[in-house]
Amino acid sequence: MVQSGARFTLYGHWLSGPCYKVGLMLALCGLPYEYRSVDLLGGANRTDAFLAINRFGEVPVLRHGSLTLVQSNVILEYLAAVAGGLAGEGAAGALQAKEWLAWGADRLKPYIYRTRTFRHFPERSSPQVVDYLRGATADALAFLDRSLSSRPWLVGEGPTIADVGCWAPVAYLQEAGFDQADYPNISAWAARLGELRGFALPHALMPKADATVRLAHHRDGADAT
Amino acid sequence: MVQSGARFTLYGHWLSGPCYKVGLMLALCGLPYEYRSVDLLGGANRTDAFLAINRFGEVPVLRHGSLTLVQSNVILEYLAAVAGGLAGEGAAGALQAKEWLAWGADRLKPYIYRTRTFRHFPERSSPQVVDYLRGATADALAFLDRSLSSRPWLVGEGPTIADVGCWAPVAYLQEAGFDQADYPNISAWAARLGELRGFALPHALMPKADATVRLAHHRDGADAT
Repeated sequence: MVQSGARFTLYGHWLSGPCYKVGLMLALCGLPYEYRSVDLLGGANRTDAFLAINRFGEVPVLRHGSLTLVQSNVILEYLAAVAGGLAGEGAAGALQAKEWLAWGADRLKPYIYRTRTFRHFPERSSPQVVDYLRGATADALAFLDRSLSSRPWLVGEGPTIADVGCWAPVAYLQEAGFDQADYPNISAWAARLGELRGFALPHALMPKADATVRLAHHRDGADAT
Repeated sequence: MVQSGARFTLYGHWLSGPCYKVGLMLALCGLPYEYRSVDLLGGANRTDAFLAINRFGEVPVLRHGSLTLVQSNVILEYLAAVAGGLAGEGAAGALQAKEWLAWGADRLKPYIYRTRTFRHFPERSSPQVVDYLRGATADALAFLDRSLSSRPWLVGEGPTIADVGCWAPVAYLQEAGFDQADYPNISAWAARLGELRGFALPHALMPKADATVRLAHHRDGADAT
């Protein structure tokens, strides 16, 4: 399944949190890639050509050799296998990392991103719906903050895909109308993430147009290109 | 990671769709198990004893030998590996099955179950929130129905965890106020699922109290106990 010699191509949109998640994972793994910008606002993800790449009509999509992968958490697991890192320590660690990815997809992702969207476009929603989404987001953030009170990373002694996967939506916390300072353990975790080689925030990381992404920092110190 | 000789214990609640998902998977795999009912309404999932089993304070939980697994989609992948079936054909099929599990968690699960909950308890919500949840549910059901228009199963030529994972929330479609007859391809898929050995609907499958579940139908025809 793993094609370690082939090149990566990421299809994404610079405002998409799930695309940032995959871009950040590639950066942390020190993997260079071709970036293809998909014009979501223009409906490029609904064309037959794009649907042939991703039946769900969504970004991100990652191509690696002959493989086409979709769904950001599936891509993270794949990249952890390809890059040989961030998967979690041993079988139990790998399971726990997958469980946290599932938790983030279940409790955080459906709420924080919609809260962000409706904050930018209040006319698309109603105060009741925003309250509902904000409440669920706050619950998830409080749980995440408690979970990080006694450990530096979500699983084991070092960063894993659990941290990358749960961080991606949290990176948009301020845009969603929350204050990171209200969550001291999340803030400390964010600072630790920020020290990892290759880490960058969404607007610094995501290209706005097609690009060849050569990473400045490589895990092994070598030049990426 | 796979402990094929050990017994399974499922912690769940009979009204929980994610618990039904795991119970159905065990049944389709012909795996007998001990069932432990967790009193969600009484807060049993918030006790220290339960949180030591599942840090997320949720059901389902599956124990297998010394392993404790949480998050229903992670459990499905694990059971597919243990039981040697329903994982999808080859590496590409297995990836596609995981992608569908992620789609179901993203587009169907957060909406259909809350629609169902608020239909039973309208005083907990508002018409605006119900409209929001119903709209997202309808979008997901329409997509699922279109996806099943040209194929019998979501991935490949036979049933996989993709079907089990996406079926579980759809099993509650009527309780959520939708009519399955409006989705002819979903209805045909449901009929195909219904013919699988071990298949049962939620109320027929899920015990209301602790139980030893000996399955009437085994994949290999042997008695389960």
